[in-house]
Amino acid sequence: MTEDAIKASLLSELVGRLHPYVPGEQPQGERLIKLNTNESPYGPSEAVIDAIRDAADDRLRLYPDPSATGLRQSIADYYDVPIDHVFVGNGSDEVLAFAFAAFFQQPKPLLYPSVSYSFYPVYCNLYDINAETIDLHDDMSLSLDDYDRPNGGIIFPNPNAPTSRAVPISDIEALLKKNTESVVLVDEAYVDFGADSAIPLIKQYPNLVVTQTFSKSRSLAGMRVGLAVAHPALITALESVRDSFNSYPVDTLAQAAATAAMKDTTWFDQSIARVINTRENTATSLVKAGFEVQPSKANFLLVSHPQIPGKTLLDHLRSDGIIVRHWDKPGLSPYIRVSIGTDEDMQLFLQSLQTLVAA
Amino acid sequence: MTEDAIKASLLSELVGRLHPYVPGEQPQGERLIKLNTNESPYGPSEAVIDAIRDAADDRLRLYPDPSATGLRQSIADYYDVPIDHVFVGNGSDEVLAFAFAAFFQQPKPLLYPSVSYSFYPVYCNLYDINAETIDLHDDMSLSLDDYDRPNGGIIFPNPNAPTSRAVPISDIEALLKKNTESVVLVDEAYVDFGADSAIPLIKQYPNLVVTQTFSKSRSLAGMRVGLAVAHPALITALESVRDSFNSYPVDTLAQAAATAAMKDTTWFDQSIARVINTRENTATSLVKAGFEVQPSKANFLLVSHPQIPGKTLLDHLRSDGIIVRHWDKPGLSPYIRVSIGTDEDMQLFLQSLQTLVAA
Repeated sequence: MTEDAIKASLLSELVGRLHPYVPGEQPQGERLIKLNTNESPYGPSEAVIDAIRDAADDRLRLYPDPSATGLRQSIADYYDVPIDHVFVGNGSDEVLAFAFAAFFQQPKPLLYPSVSYSFYPVYCNLYDINAETIDLHDDMSLSLDDYDRPNGGIIFPNPNAPTSRAVPISDIEALLKKNTESVVLVDEAYVDFGADSAIPLIKQYPNLVVTQTFSKSRSLAGMRVGLAVAHPALITALESVRDSFNSYPVDTLAQAAATAAMKDTTWFDQSIARVINTRENTATSLVKAGFEVQPSKANFLLVSHPQIPGKTLLDHLRSDGIIVRHWDKPGLSPYIRVSIGTDEDMQLFLQSLQTLVAA
Repeated sequence: MTEDAIKASLLSELVGRLHPYVPGEQPQGERLIKLNTNESPYGPSEAVIDAIRDAADDRLRLYPDPSATGLRQSIADYYDVPIDHVFVGNGSDEVLAFAFAAFFQQPKPLLYPSVSYSFYPVYCNLYDINAETIDLHDDMSLSLDDYDRPNGGIIFPNPNAPTSRAVPISDIEALLKKNTESVVLVDEAYVDFGADSAIPLIKQYPNLVVTQTFSKSRSLAGMRVGLAVAHPALITALESVRDSFNSYPVDTLAQAAATAAMKDTTWFDQSIARVINTRENTATSLVKAGFEVQPSKANFLLVSHPQIPGKTLLDHLRSDGIIVRHWDKPGLSPYIRVSIGTDEDMQLFLQSLQTLVAA
């Protein structure tokens, strides 16, 4: 049988319809400055490493706690919500995948920003969800007034990615006052770097779902943990979808690591402050060097230059051993997205761009 | 809004259709002899613990290798197949979930045994897959001749669960010779305890998919790793579904742990031999005590008594602090399924049953 014959006869129709997500490159073993996937430049809290080492023993023969009670309690404590408002999954991508299945297969279209997290259209394809994208304004800002229209659900990141811009909580509340008949999901992957979480609104608005990740502000991209906070009726729906797919997606060590990360608020506050400080210094230096920089509340910057195309910036940086992200897509081609690294990483990044501008 | 109103207006229709899987109880903190979820009684290899400790450092800030190259290579080496024949996921449940989506949404029905892994009908519900169950024979054996009928896919565990019985590889090959137009998935969760893997057949039969788990024979239920081996065209389809759902489901420590587990063949062979030895001794003692025991090639026994109902066996054992599994389902109600524990666990299990029989 040829490969084509195999595909035609054996695969579900679904497979032909999919447009899988393409994550940022994870080069193995190369010596590069990696500013392309919004990881933290700092390792996790020592309490996290200790928790992993303590849990790595014969107990790994047993299945994890399927309810992840300890981890969910640590999140409930941190955000001052009841534990039945908390769901955890294998990274916020898995949490989002469950949420798209549980909430967004609706007769009316799902609304999301035209420039946004590129996994959203992938989930829509996977679950055959009817969607409508809403354009950003010319300055790349997102106005929630534009979402006041018939819909089967609304999702947006706050801060938005890759624009780095945040909307104020008051705008989210204004939307929730008008939009009561469908789920509003605020994807807070980057919220800890300067925006306000919508979690306190959940007690008044039972159609609000907030997702977050341990991959960025808690330095645990390697451990794959994400969370959702919502009214228990919505959490139960997420659990039903999960338990129809995989009963234990968060492993024992991931639960231990994330619980310790949630509890070490001192480490967390310091680590966030360092990233924000580096971000602000980098943005100032970029503007001085003639670049345009979106006002960022995230752990990355969206950067452009009035004369130099985004692709040229990308290629020049790569030739200096620095990886950033660039999308050859409408609205995004002038830009590069740069994760905030250490001060030293950002010095090398700035030097590389200054050389390019000078040439 | 009442909880009912929330459910009605906000959830996808899918949620109402689901019948989530109910895994065996994972009691937290209780002192019980846990013979209910087919975990290994022995902790993982020391090489596994060392690999986890070595990998638990600042690198956890980075995303895992999305290709899991090291882990997939260790599996390829073990089974002597090319690395492009290997897929890994978050437990074999996730691998099965991806496989149902990629292969079994077909016009013709999926075939699987009426007494089998209870996650199969759950996936069929999730993906709206048309299925037909094939009855076992009266002695609980599975005959692959019964699967020679029009189908859009075939899946069965070998050994079957919870019957513990295996079919020979020659029967699987006979089926593959006749059934060339749909995927045949052999779920080998328990294969290491005495059955033969169908993996060597893959080079001749490009419609064969074999799945396995690290949760049983490799003592890593806590780490959530499963694998599939198949023709690269089928592996690519699994990757498409995965990358439309969650790009990095196997975390950095799970990759490190599973790689070390795959390489430590000495530990593996010894651990398997101990479980088999305990299983055979337990089966012999049960028969002596008047019980009926299915011939097992797995790390569990399916046990019944001519006079005592399965539910009575379950309740009596529980009152002695021993948890086993019982299903109140057609064909299964006379039985309990008992995971093989340590020799000491099984002594206590036997004593409990002997007391019941004597009473």
